[in-house]
Amino acid sequence: MLRRFPFVKGHGTENDFVLLPDHDGEAFPDLDPATVRRLTDRPSGLGADGVIRVVRSEALPEGRDQADRAEWFMDYRNADGSAAEMCGNGIRVLARYLWSAGLAPGPELPIGTRAGVRTVHEQADGSITVNMGGAVLVAIREPMTVTAGGRTWPINAVFAPNPHAVAFVDDLDDPGRLVDAPRVLASTVFPHGANVEFAVVRGPRHVAMRVWERGVGETRSCGTGVCAAAFALMERDGSRPGSSYIVDVPGGRLTVMSRDDSSLLLTGPAVLGVSGTAELPRV
Amino acid sequence: MLRRFPFVKGHGTENDFVLLPDHDGEAFPDLDPATVRRLTDRPSGLGADGVIRVVRSEALPEGRDQADRAEWFMDYRNADGSAAEMCGNGIRVLARYLWSAGLAPGPELPIGTRAGVRTVHEQADGSITVNMGGAVLVAIREPMTVTAGGRTWPINAVFAPNPHAVAFVDDLDDPGRLVDAPRVLASTVFPHGANVEFAVVRGPRHVAMRVWERGVGETRSCGTGVCAAAFALMERDGSRPGSSYIVDVPGGRLTVMSRDDSSLLLTGPAVLGVSGTAELPRV
Repeated sequence: MLRRFPFVKGHGTENDFVLLPDHDGEAFPDLDPATVRRLTDRPSGLGADGVIRVVRSEALPEGRDQADRAEWFMDYRNADGSAAEMCGNGIRVLARYLWSAGLAPGPELPIGTRAGVRTVHEQADGSITVNMGGAVLVAIREPMTVTAGGRTWPINAVFAPNPHAVAFVDDLDDPGRLVDAPRVLASTVFPHGANVEFAVVRGPRHVAMRVWERGVGETRSCGTGVCAAAFALMERDGSRPGSSYIVDVPGGRLTVMSRDDSSLLLTGPAVLGVSGTAELPRV
Repeated sequence: MLRRFPFVKGHGTENDFVLLPDHDGEAFPDLDPATVRRLTDRPSGLGADGVIRVVRSEALPEGRDQADRAEWFMDYRNADGSAAEMCGNGIRVLARYLWSAGLAPGPELPIGTRAGVRTVHEQADGSITVNMGGAVLVAIREPMTVTAGGRTWPINAVFAPNPHAVAFVDDLDDPGRLVDAPRVLASTVFPHGANVEFAVVRGPRHVAMRVWERGVGETRSCGTGVCAAAFALMERDGSRPGSSYIVDVPGGRLTVMSRDDSSLLLTGPAVLGVSGTAELPRV
């Protein structure tokens, strides 16, 4: 499969994606994990943190019940080939592509995802906001920690809604190189592990962080991780709905705002890059 | 320029390149640094450590005097857009492309470079050997050091022929994250700075290393850096010509053999990846 196919690269705060336009779902009915891994491999593929198949909701079994509210669906795959429910940076890039290609009206656009319909909104400055839904902080009696670079920190267990362990550190260098996964000790709340954020408070409502994504490694940015870190700080601050927090990641800056309904709005850039047609070598 | 252009990606030990076939030198007469930077940018471009324009020697002013000995020329650019003389991983990938496309005979092939004609040779196991020329170790009275991750080590100053500072460390984690350039104190021998190798001896004639390349940052592999580290260890061992050293880099394994004429033979893999046609977005 995938003999010769069109592609577009794009990123949000350097969290990057290969977009595969497949409007009617006929080009890649069999986008298998091995192909996703070959596409995302940086030395030999197009190189990305994930793949977004751009497809009409009605063309996909899991999108059909959203087709009346969202014409387009984000069929998102992690770099390791597994399907993911949502991606806060990826959905902004997908919106940019749909608007740029004249495939959808703006500035507000509902997009189908495996986590349900999410609405994105283009701001006057060109940044894009996505409603990421709610987050919860889990408190239990047993101590929960993360260990990296020979040091151990207590963690805040956040579901956003995927699992995140947020540790507040003194310096972003403290966790070391992160060649191996940080060791999370919180099996009761995270039976299947968690993404890990190491965060430093830079000032009022301003945090900087590094992120380790399960099955990927350290990345330049992670939308749910950014929401998790901001939410942990919001809870610590006892901040009111409507508060806006700045989150700096290695790949840029995002803002997270809490709403009255306790959902989080993630705002940041979305950039389209190189495009064309490509083919993978025979294996 | 560069409206729509063919490309091939390839890598040697994950030191990766965008190859731009331009056989008669007419497609990219003006491959400017800004375009190279956009092509190599990982989040928005095709992503690579460098660009190799594949061109006939006679079609390039700097290749014309090599045209009688080498039909093809490696017009190599670093990711930052600057021209480079040679690239030990890149020339193997270029040879693989020329053989794979049926553009040149094997298993031995002379290729023109800004450092003169270099001959590559395909081994029976598919790996490719390139003669990297000689290296020299510079000894001076003043202490020479490199500092990274809060620690300082003495260095071996090696010209291969570009400048390298080789430090033998106890653990590859010791230099830390290498977010910023390691600080080299050896201004007499390196007035314009140097690439830095942090090397750990793994056993007899076997070293593992990390590399920081000037103007790039930490990379997965660097051909001249591998030769410099092997050469520093060969000198320390007092090894004879004909000795073969294994060098492990984050992206894989290479071997370096010294010859009677004191030149170094670098041997390792060369892999072709995705190919196609692409265009850069308007800026």
